[in-house]
Amino acid sequence: MSRWLAALALAAALAAPAADAGGDPLPSWREGRARQAILAFVQAVTDPASAQYVAPGARIAAFDNDGTLWSEQPLYVQLAFAIDRVRALAPRRPEWKTTQPFQAVLEDDRRALAAAGQQGLLKLVLATHAGMTADQFARTVAEWLETARHPRFNRPYTELVYQPMLELLAYLRANGFKTYIVSGGGAEFIRAFSERAYGIPPEQVIGTTIETRFQAGPDGAPALVRQPRVDFIDDGPGKPVAIGKFIGRRPILAFGNSDGDHQMLQWTAAVAGRSLVGLVHHTDGDREWAYDRQSHVGRLDRALVEARTRGWTIADMKQDWKVIFPFDR
Amino acid sequence: MSRWLAALALAAALAAPAADAGGDPLPSWREGRARQAILAFVQAVTDPASAQYVAPGARIAAFDNDGTLWSEQPLYVQLAFAIDRVRALAPRRPEWKTTQPFQAVLEDDRRALAAAGQQGLLKLVLATHAGMTADQFARTVAEWLETARHPRFNRPYTELVYQPMLELLAYLRANGFKTYIVSGGGAEFIRAFSERAYGIPPEQVIGTTIETRFQAGPDGAPALVRQPRVDFIDDGPGKPVAIGKFIGRRPILAFGNSDGDHQMLQWTAAVAGRSLVGLVHHTDGDREWAYDRQSHVGRLDRALVEARTRGWTIADMKQDWKVIFPFDR
Repeated sequence: MSRWLAALALAAALAAPAADAGGDPLPSWREGRARQAILAFVQAVTDPASAQYVAPGARIAAFDNDGTLWSEQPLYVQLAFAIDRVRALAPRRPEWKTTQPFQAVLEDDRRALAAAGQQGLLKLVLATHAGMTADQFARTVAEWLETARHPRFNRPYTELVYQPMLELLAYLRANGFKTYIVSGGGAEFIRAFSERAYGIPPEQVIGTTIETRFQAGPDGAPALVRQPRVDFIDDGPGKPVAIGKFIGRRPILAFGNSDGDHQMLQWTAAVAGRSLVGLVHHTDGDREWAYDRQSHVGRLDRALVEARTRGWTIADMKQDWKVIFPFDR
Repeated sequence: MSRWLAALALAAALAAPAADAGGDPLPSWREGRARQAILAFVQAVTDPASAQYVAPGARIAAFDNDGTLWSEQPLYVQLAFAIDRVRALAPRRPEWKTTQPFQAVLEDDRRALAAAGQQGLLKLVLATHAGMTADQFARTVAEWLETARHPRFNRPYTELVYQPMLELLAYLRANGFKTYIVSGGGAEFIRAFSERAYGIPPEQVIGTTIETRFQAGPDGAPALVRQPRVDFIDDGPGKPVAIGKFIGRRPILAFGNSDGDHQMLQWTAAVAGRSLVGLVHHTDGDREWAYDRQSHVGRLDRALVEARTRGWTIADMKQDWKVIFPFDR
C-alpha cells in the first residue's frame, strides 16, 4: 500500500463509523434546524407508510464537491495541482518562462496570474491535464495527492474533507440513497480520490470533462488519450443538464455551497415529491473560512437569498458543525 | 398498473429466475464454448484465491443494446418509434406532407426513405425527440411501448429481449458485477424501459444524446428541455470515450453484435487483467434473423474477423441458445 493509499485509508477510518456509540448517525451535527431537516427528510422518504415514500432506486442524492465536501480555500485543490504540475513540467517546456500564464506560475507572480483571468486558468488546466492517457492522468493525480500538503493545515488535501458531510453521505447510503458528486471540477481529478475519501465510486462522479480520443496509447494498446479541449463545463445550468445526461432522473436531495450550484438546487427543489435542498454556508473563519458574497472562490449570493426565501436547509458551519475535519475530533 | 408496466413486469417474471431449479445460472445456454467461457471467466475473477481476482467495484460489464440484448430487425425499435411519432404528429405539421423525409414516412414510401439516408433518419429523430421536457419524452416513449407491436411477432417490443442475455445479466449481477448498457441508440429512449426489461437502472444506460437546456418547462417549473441538436453519438470509438466519461474505469466484460461495438470490445480486451469480450452472432433466420456482413442494420464484419482471430467469445444464436425470447420457453 502506497503512502497515499495509507493516508486515504486512514482518513476513511477516521470518518467511520457513520453512527457513534449512541447510535446517532450524525454525531458531528449540533441540534438545530439543519440536523432536524435532514433526519425528518430521510425518515419521510424511507418510511413505506409515509405518503412521501420514495423507492430506493429513486433516492438520488447530488453533492457539489469544492466547498461542499472539502475545503476550496485558499484556492481550488485542482488549481493547486495544475500549478504544481506546471512547475514539475517546466524543465521540458522552456517556452513557459516567457509565456503567460505559465511565467506567472513559475515566478510566483500572483498579480500576473490574477490578470490572466479564467482564460489563463483554463490554459494552465489544459496544459497539465491533457496529452496523456486517462490512466496516466489518474496516476499523476494520485501521486500528487500523496505528497502535496495544504498550505494552512499542512496536511494532505484529502484530510480537508468535512466530517459532518462524511456522516451525511454514510447516513444516506445506509438508507438506500445513491450518492453522487456533481462538481465544476474535473471528473477525472475527483475520481482519483472520491472512493477512498467519500465512499463514492468513479461512476458516481460527474464533473467538468475535457475531450478524449480513442487511439493507441504509448504502449500501442488502445487507450483514451486526453485532448487539450474542453468537452463540458459542469457548472451552473450545466449541473442539471449533466445530471439528466448521466443519471436520467432527478435527485431528491442536493447540497451545494455556491451560486454555481444554484440551478441544481432549484431543479431538485422542483421535484414532484418531497426533496431536501441544502447549502453549506462557510461561516467559521477560525476553524475553516468565512466567505460568501465577496469571495473570488465559491461565491454565494443569489443561491443564499433563494435558500432563505424558500426555507432551504442551510448548514451554518460555525453553528451547526461540532467539528469540521476528521482530524478535529 | 398500466398495461405497459404490466407487460414489462410479465416479461421480467418470464425471465426470472436467473437460475433454474437445478441451480444452473444459464439454463438457456447450450453446452459449448460460449457458455464455458462465461462460466470460467466469472469463476476466475470472483474467486479471491485466483490470480485473476477482480474486486467487486471494478467488475464493470458493458452491453450494447440493439441486436445484443433485443432484436434490431427489421429496423431499430427507436426508428419504428420515430416513424410512428411522425404519423401521430403529422396533423399538427401540415408542411410534412411535402417535405422529405417526412413525406416518405407519411406515404410509406420506403424507396424515398432509404434515399434520405442517415441525414434523413437524423431529421426524423430530431423532429420527434426534441421540443419537450425530458419527463415528457420519457412518458411518450413509455406510452408508445405500451401499444406498439413488433411487425413479425405481433408482441410488444419489450418482449423481443434475448432470454440467454437476461440470464447472463442476472448471473453477472449475482456475482457482484455492475451491468451497463452502452448503445448507439438514444439514452433516454432506452432508459424508459431498461430497468423493467433488463434490470438496468437509468443511470447505468449510456447512449447517444441530444442537447438539453435547463429552462422553465410548460408549467413554469425548472425543467430540462430537449433541443433538436445532437450532443454525442455513442457509436464506434464513441463507445470507449463515453465509458471513460461516464464510468471512469474500463469494463472487464463487454458484449456487442456489430462493427459499431468493435472499439469497445478492443478496449475491453486490452484491459490489464483478465477480460471477456463477446459477440452475439445472428445466425438463426428461423427463430430470429440471420445476418452479418451484408446487413443494413447491425453490420458485423471487421469485429467478427477480429473475434475469430483473437478467440473472443462468439454466441452463435442458432448453436448456443436453446431459446431466443422469453416467450419461446
